Amino acid sequence: MHLKKPYVLFVGDVEDDLAAKVAHGIADWRPNECVGQIKLPGCEAIIDLPLLTIESAIEKGAKTLVLGVANRGGGISQSWYETLVKAAEYGLDIASGLHQLLSTVPNLNAIAEKNNVALHEARIPVGPFPIAHAKSRSGRRLLTVGTDCSVGKMYAALAIEKAMLSRKISVDFRATGQTGILISGNGVPIDAVVADFMSGAIEELCPANDPDHWDIIEGQGSLFHPSFAGVSLGLLHGAQPTDMILCHEPTRTHMRGLPEVSLPSIKHCMEANLIAAKLVNPDVRFAGIALNTVALDDHETSKIIKELSQEFGLITCDPMKHGVDDLIEFLLQG
Amino acid sequence: MHLKKPYVLFVGDVEDDLAAKVAHGIADWRPNECVGQIKLPGCEAIIDLPLLTIESAIEKGAKTLVLGVANRGGGISQSWYETLVKAAEYGLDIASGLHQLLSTVPNLNAIAEKNNVALHEARIPVGPFPIAHAKSRSGRRLLTVGTDCSVGKMYAALAIEKAMLSRKISVDFRATGQTGILISGNGVPIDAVVADFMSGAIEELCPANDPDHWDIIEGQGSLFHPSFAGVSLGLLHGAQPTDMILCHEPTRTHMRGLPEVSLPSIKHCMEANLIAAKLVNPDVRFAGIALNTVALDDHETSKIIKELSQEFGLITCDPMKHGVDDLIEFLLQG
Repeated sequence: MHLKKPYVLFVGDVEDDLAAKVAHGIADWRPNECVGQIKLPGCEAIIDLPLLTIESAIEKGAKTLVLGVANRGGGISQSWYETLVKAAEYGLDIASGLHQLLSTVPNLNAIAEKNNVALHEARIPVGPFPIAHAKSRSGRRLLTVGTDCSVGKMYAALAIEKAMLSRKISVDFRATGQTGILISGNGVPIDAVVADFMSGAIEELCPANDPDHWDIIEGQGSLFHPSFAGVSLGLLHGAQPTDMILCHEPTRTHMRGLPEVSLPSIKHCMEANLIAAKLVNPDVRFAGIALNTVALDDHETSKIIKELSQEFGLITCDPMKHGVDDLIEFLLQG
Repeated sequence: MHLKKPYVLFVGDVEDDLAAKVAHGIADWRPNECVGQIKLPGCEAIIDLPLLTIESAIEKGAKTLVLGVANRGGGISQSWYETLVKAAEYGLDIASGLHQLLSTVPNLNAIAEKNNVALHEARIPVGPFPIAHAKSRSGRRLLTVGTDCSVGKMYAALAIEKAMLSRKISVDFRATGQTGILISGNGVPIDAVVADFMSGAIEELCPANDPDHWDIIEGQGSLFHPSFAGVSLGLLHGAQPTDMILCHEPTRTHMRGLPEVSLPSIKHCMEANLIAAKLVNPDVRFAGIALNTVALDDHETSKIIKELSQEFGLITCDPMKHGVDDLIEFLLQG
């Protein structure tokens, strides 16, 4: 899956910024790859990009219209159909990470075909994928792993990529979920890959590279989330990381969606990831801890960062509050 | 997937017993559920079942013709087409575990539809499957786990089921691979399930049950096989075992298909499986060690069994050489 850039983001008529999460993610991390946004009447999401029409987006060079919406249920609202069909008529590729497929929009398939326009579904893997070979490969690969789902693994990875790019380091963000795929323009939605090919798909996503090249790989789930741990392990083995970052949300009281399952300790979680990762790279290490402290005030944030950095002797930060400069320094040292 | 029994086994014109592995497995473990076998001229496989034709198989009550072949490449030979089409014409369901789908046999789909005959593909999961809920559930569940792929996990599980059945214990073998599915008549080919649903599919396969009911669950792969460990972990979490049996082939020099990856020690393998399984059942235990000693003589077999049973204090046996009576006694004690 390779999405053509630049994008124009389409946020429909969504009621708030949360429902425009994907558009915000793209605007935050790839502002220079977006020519603007298209809204419908009633849209309350506020995104810091120029307001455009299909016509003006094309004038500004847009190649792909991306559905920037992450609504409950993942449906494509009928009120968006007209814009999607018009985009295809005007020759824009369309990309979506929603559950409902673009092909279910009336006439869209036929119009896309006629106009030689691609409809990209970020939730559907584009295989075939190989079985993992598990052979040692060159290059640096940093994987973000978590104590739970939705603790900041994608944002930590993107922050590290951004900081490395600003230092002219050879780096690629490797997306493994639909939002990351729409942000970066390619990747593998690992949770939708057939089980036998999970690790092979990730090996293909981050192949052998120059010794000083960095792949920053978006982790998924957690080895301690009993619904998804198999996916996290398949991803971990395919990634063959040289470095890992432990991601954690300090106020989480139980595993996401499972009120009766408590979170692992950070120590326990690191140990389990190290043991598993050493199967494919005996030299793997943890390089740091990335916290999502959005629910904490400054004092609480400072306190937990101090505690964890002392306990583990690792650089600990909230990438969104403090940046990742110290982490990059550490990564480049060895 | 629920295959109607009794079966008639079809072994085509295969050249040896290895290529008739599936038929041998069914004849070994479900002899009373097979009315006989159908061979073509040139077939050299020797299976201990009556030789039949389609007509005589139906007279004897056969409901499903099972392709008992596991040939290299997984193709359906053109020389078998006539028999398959005739089976469907005569109203037999057909079941296959081969890569090549039954629907690719000329006319077979149409004839099957016309005659209300089911074509079962044991490699293709029949979903949809839920996301795993990971809630504690009643009943005993024994999972066979391995140091590697192909070390006897299915045979150990079937031997335990058979011994329990002979004692009138309430027990079900739960198949997770195509051969096991063809033997038992149902199951989930876990390696072909979409990653996100691995654990949920297995939860559905072995749901909550009476406290004294046993599900004997066929394990797959190994937590130490870097190509497939994610599948093994997803299966393990979905199974939520109360008891595990460690399966091992003592002469294996490296992980199957990966000459550069060595086998884990039995101790290391047990520890990793216990840690992972405790996430869903803190009371899980290892109940024994099942060896595949087909490559060892009697003296070597006795020696390693003595060594391992002393080292781990667990019942150790080769289920195919010694049966599993001691193991059953131990399982029933607690």
